[in-house]
Amino acid sequence: MSDKSAVTTHLAAYAAGYRYSDLPAEVRQEALRSVFNILACTIGGARHNGVDTADKALGGFTGPANVTLFGRGRKTDALHAALINCLASSIYSFDDTHEQAVVHPAGPVASAAFAMAELQLVSGEAFLAAVALGIELECRLCKALTVPPAKGSMAWSGTGITGGIGAAVAAGSLLGLDMPAMRMAIGIALSQAAGFRAMHGTLCTPLMPAQAAQTGLRAAFLARAGFTSSPVALEGRYGYLSVFSDQPDLEALTGGLGERFEILRNTYKPYPCGIVIHPIIDACLELRRTYGLDASRIASVAIAASPGAMALCNNRNPRDEMQAHVSLHHWTAVCFVRGTARIQDMDTGTAVKDPDLMAFQDRVAASLDPNRASDSAEVTVVLTDGSRHTVNIEHGIGSAARPMTNTELETKFAGLVVPMLGEARTRALIDQCWTLGSSHDAGALARASA
Amino acid sequence: MSDKSAVTTHLAAYAAGYRYSDLPAEVRQEALRSVFNILACTIGGARHNGVDTADKALGGFTGPANVTLFGRGRKTDALHAALINCLASSIYSFDDTHEQAVVHPAGPVASAAFAMAELQLVSGEAFLAAVALGIELECRLCKALTVPPAKGSMAWSGTGITGGIGAAVAAGSLLGLDMPAMRMAIGIALSQAAGFRAMHGTLCTPLMPAQAAQTGLRAAFLARAGFTSSPVALEGRYGYLSVFSDQPDLEALTGGLGERFEILRNTYKPYPCGIVIHPIIDACLELRRTYGLDASRIASVAIAASPGAMALCNNRNPRDEMQAHVSLHHWTAVCFVRGTARIQDMDTGTAVKDPDLMAFQDRVAASLDPNRASDSAEVTVVLTDGSRHTVNIEHGIGSAARPMTNTELETKFAGLVVPMLGEARTRALIDQCWTLGSSHDAGALARASA
Repeated sequence: MSDKSAVTTHLAAYAAGYRYSDLPAEVRQEALRSVFNILACTIGGARHNGVDTADKALGGFTGPANVTLFGRGRKTDALHAALINCLASSIYSFDDTHEQAVVHPAGPVASAAFAMAELQLVSGEAFLAAVALGIELECRLCKALTVPPAKGSMAWSGTGITGGIGAAVAAGSLLGLDMPAMRMAIGIALSQAAGFRAMHGTLCTPLMPAQAAQTGLRAAFLARAGFTSSPVALEGRYGYLSVFSDQPDLEALTGGLGERFEILRNTYKPYPCGIVIHPIIDACLELRRTYGLDASRIASVAIAASPGAMALCNNRNPRDEMQAHVSLHHWTAVCFVRGTARIQDMDTGTAVKDPDLMAFQDRVAASLDPNRASDSAEVTVVLTDGSRHTVNIEHGIGSAARPMTNTELETKFAGLVVPMLGEARTRALIDQCWTLGSSHDAGALARASA
Repeated sequence: MSDKSAVTTHLAAYAAGYRYSDLPAEVRQEALRSVFNILACTIGGARHNGVDTADKALGGFTGPANVTLFGRGRKTDALHAALINCLASSIYSFDDTHEQAVVHPAGPVASAAFAMAELQLVSGEAFLAAVALGIELECRLCKALTVPPAKGSMAWSGTGITGGIGAAVAAGSLLGLDMPAMRMAIGIALSQAAGFRAMHGTLCTPLMPAQAAQTGLRAAFLARAGFTSSPVALEGRYGYLSVFSDQPDLEALTGGLGERFEILRNTYKPYPCGIVIHPIIDACLELRRTYGLDASRIASVAIAASPGAMALCNNRNPRDEMQAHVSLHHWTAVCFVRGTARIQDMDTGTAVKDPDLMAFQDRVAASLDPNRASDSAEVTVVLTDGSRHTVNIEHGIGSAARPMTNTELETKFAGLVVPMLGEARTRALIDQCWTLGSSHDAGALARASA
């Protein structure tokens, strides 16, 4: 980009001119995979106690029932739906993650876009373009704040402070905003950007992206109506970039727009836990499968873990779901005792306090392997007969180097959705989702997910 | 405060135990004056084009009509009402300002409290206590972020990032939240804290406090329902204080709670423009009145202005209301040509582009008086006959050293409300407001202001 004084204008012009027909095939495909994945996460999270709590606490203030609450069997107003659907999508931290920036982009974007697709008729192509656009700008913005050469604080919630731009441009695109209105929508959304990491492990963690979804969607409607914001919201004095980054990387934000696509670096999680535990789970499940291991035959488990896994997840004997989410001991026990790694395997009552899972953790020990990458782990089991087996995972499933295949995504989808909608509806929904690009009505996908 | 590790708990305990009966008479009185002033600002701003725009843009998403939109003749749901009422209260920047911290505390607090007073029966005493509490914590928090010895960035919108705690504890108090729930409400509200100053001069400037009002009110309902947040939202690692201040002043936040009252430092603006212009207006109106000056007899006006006035408001020939708000030339012309300084004197069509006001500005010149305080100005007029008159204002009306009297507040109230509700209803509302403390139903004040 040549003109550093017009960052907001540059992004708004790109957003206003974004068309499905201009997108490379792999971008279209990744947008579809992002929708597929977040749809599963949203339905799978829809009956979480935290989602129930928020929906009920605010239910008395909601408006016309136009937009589906995924997996909750009713509709509500678009702004409340964007909030609750995004809350559900991220409540198990099972959503998507950009390979470099710590942002989970699809939740705010898809929640806003799905709301739009029930407020007006939206084609599958327009829907996928809006989602691709929102994810693109959200990832670029988060990268520009924190990924070197940018210097920024890890204290901010990446999705909280960047989700709004994603939701705003996705909704703005579907509202047909022109450049000046899109620029206002971006500014309005960013003026509400919020969230910091002290909230980790509480329900405010998913509330921060949810708030971004709602304020981003709202910003698009305000901008369409003529509400004003700064035309230099990002780059202006006392602007967004100045408050959220010590040294923003403008090239990451606006360089190669339409040529380089950050959405291609979006990744999906196969397991509903801290991403640094994933290669450990891969190794454990492979050991169990390959050697037909029964938990009772296992004397001990030794894990050579990455610095990230040790720093964040070396937590034995979690007490609730939130703590189990970041306990490598818990998930190792789950793998060997149950042979699975699903959301129901971190339920506080039936999993975290399961005596078998609790007891097994005493046999698990992790040690630091300082040169090991975050997507890598080595696990060695010693059996009661003294024999040993080792599996080394170079790149865990769902990492950038080993993306989830569409088949693996379908397995994840079924794991999340079948308990909510049953086998037959889930299978139909999977088929409907993969053919979204040729649909004349993207809202049908939402209505099929009630 | 002795325990720096429990700031959030300390504030939550104070908020949960706050009672009208414990408050000194001057605190009760200042809470009432704050309500009186913000009620006038809210009604006076209710028909501003920006309020219309937001209300209409979002009207399709609103819920049960329980809560009054001041000055707009109808009710809407509590969350939308908190947003729109607070937007109206701050849209002319005519609201209140803490003497030290750059925060306008009453808008978010009163908007949330008024919504509560129509959702349930709230006595005048409980209402005033909730407002006093909200203003107290909001001002303390803003002071703790930025007023020396604290070191913080001026880039944040003070009201945007602290209004939420005020609205949350005010609403939480009226919901009867206990300490643990109040602590959650504070954390939830702060997790949504947002706003930066690049938005200055756009409709996002009032949207930032409005958003704080809405998210604060929402936080109280979420907390009551059991939604969780960090119990160390303020002081925790990667917490609120760490992201919004380089060096927060914890003593300002929690020192002398219940003994020192920041609400006593709340000030009210007599004129709807940048506060550093106020002493200039005082001088101009006094000159006009004392010497019976007619604008046609004035050859030139020389203003000895404070550094603040010169830095922010030395702006000749504004083009619209937003620019006129911070133009000392415009307001000097208004004073001498019209003899007033009201919101209608910055209307883009009928005032900013008034040829008489535009022409008069050519006769106005301001020069820097480097040692002059922000609440001071000296104005000299030279008449066409060569004679000169000078007035020096030591402390402008509405400054901390020269607070607005109740009579002056009534004049301001009438100026804002009579054009909306007429003389008789305005006079009745003024009387009703001053007797709020003995009312059994604070919501009646809202219903009388529709």
